[in-house]
Amino acid sequence: MTQHGTHQDTGRPMFEFDSATAVSRRPSDGSSDQPGHAVFDGEIHDGWDIGGNANGGYLLAVAGAAMREASGRVDPITLTAHYLAPGRPGPVTIETDVVKSGRQLVTMTASMRSGDREVIRMLGSFGDVAAASGGFSDVVGGPPDLPPLEECSARSDNGVVGVPLMGRMKVRLNPAHARFNEGIRTGRAVIEGWFEFADDRPVDTLALLFVVDAFPPPVFNIEMPLGWVPTVELTVHVRGIPVSGPLRCRFHTEYIQNGFLQEDSEVWDASDRLVATSRQLALMPRG
Amino acid sequence: MTQHGTHQDTGRPMFEFDSATAVSRRPSDGSSDQPGHAVFDGEIHDGWDIGGNANGGYLLAVAGAAMREASGRVDPITLTAHYLAPGRPGPVTIETDVVKSGRQLVTMTASMRSGDREVIRMLGSFGDVAAASGGFSDVVGGPPDLPPLEECSARSDNGVVGVPLMGRMKVRLNPAHARFNEGIRTGRAVIEGWFEFADDRPVDTLALLFVVDAFPPPVFNIEMPLGWVPTVELTVHVRGIPVSGPLRCRFHTEYIQNGFLQEDSEVWDASDRLVATSRQLALMPRG
Repeated sequence: MTQHGTHQDTGRPMFEFDSATAVSRRPSDGSSDQPGHAVFDGEIHDGWDIGGNANGGYLLAVAGAAMREASGRVDPITLTAHYLAPGRPGPVTIETDVVKSGRQLVTMTASMRSGDREVIRMLGSFGDVAAASGGFSDVVGGPPDLPPLEECSARSDNGVVGVPLMGRMKVRLNPAHARFNEGIRTGRAVIEGWFEFADDRPVDTLALLFVVDAFPPPVFNIEMPLGWVPTVELTVHVRGIPVSGPLRCRFHTEYIQNGFLQEDSEVWDASDRLVATSRQLALMPRG
Repeated sequence: MTQHGTHQDTGRPMFEFDSATAVSRRPSDGSSDQPGHAVFDGEIHDGWDIGGNANGGYLLAVAGAAMREASGRVDPITLTAHYLAPGRPGPVTIETDVVKSGRQLVTMTASMRSGDREVIRMLGSFGDVAAASGGFSDVVGGPPDLPPLEECSARSDNGVVGVPLMGRMKVRLNPAHARFNEGIRTGRAVIEGWFEFADDRPVDTLALLFVVDAFPPPVFNIEMPLGWVPTVELTVHVRGIPVSGPLRCRFHTEYIQNGFLQEDSEVWDASDRLVATSRQLALMPRG
């Protein structure tokens, strides 16, 4: 599978996200191979972390890149990850297995390991998200009603320190939702804003796996013990191929109880079409 | 793990759901065992199907019963299934593997097979959903506002034929959402109603895996080509232990495009507490 963009001269990826999610398949060693099994080498790159822990959406994209290549299909359609250990910068291996290769979808599992520690376990289906475009369509709601991009608050200008991840992207929050760092909370666990990569890489369906976990937790806007919100499980549905231009995203939490919270996202492209949704189950910050 | 209820004299389950989800672990055969691996025998029972295909939530509960037993924990917390082939009545094997056994959660995979055909592949985490009850809680919204149970429409009285599943439960729909079989659609893909088992079995966290797929597809209430809506992937979050009494459920679809649709549910208990949510990605009926 080709990289999204490569320098004509060097063959190296033009964009940070492509370098950071590059994986290479190990040559098959013959006799011991199980059918549908493959092993990839990849690397958790520095700079995609919050306080030393790689962002969950970034890990999803690295593993998703290996699964996509092994599937032989162009798009992740639905992908679930369980987060088992923090991802630290350094080499990782991703083992992938084909569960079922169907006409429309290829179902895959994958496991990402860093040394002897498993970081994430995945289950997902890959296909062609635009194969059935133009058929029956019915979408309730639409993109969030955001102020123009230039009137929104850069996440990185917003008093957040120790978040190298912020250098990878231009996330511009609706100013109405962006004052939690000053202790001003809206009282409703919603954060909306614009998303672009810092180096203007176009967002394809692989990058959507990163986008759905790229915003601050919306619970920062309610009176709750603050802190790290560890994801237990994250499921992404890729629903379309984004047209070029900034994405509009809505992140929100409705259900906090019994030590767990849910967080949903909807991601819309510049043509007002839904391109991804996600839902995660996370642990409450321990106060 | 004990059944929910058993006859004192025979030791057999008192309730249909317990018989229909019973699994038995094969004795370990020693040398060839992988750590954390177990094999269960179960059976897809007759009568839990729609037109010969076992209900997806029922399959989830059978596989979930095996995973729960192998996990040594009391509750499914988040469980994802990919549906690979229709489940037909008859014996099945469920192979389970422990991915990680943590303090709070045990992460498991499972595969259900019928003969040489894989029916579903699962990934999930098990724990104790009530372990952190009484902590910080914030829930937006509440149960659907339904007419009293006796004024709602029994799903089985509603012109549906060839649906043996209807004999297993008392699903009573909000009459405002229940006229799709007469060709009267609300124009909004929402179906709400009450849920109880036909034999009044209490709903525990295992049974919630069944409840989240027990209603008619809410897209029956919009002008869309009707037909079988095959689930690709279904993820359930179990959020609480239901108190006794009928459940109130809301099923809804917002995003239909590119040949796929999403369907969500929220399930509330008789004390107005959220006990489960689900989201599935399904294929559009082929017209």
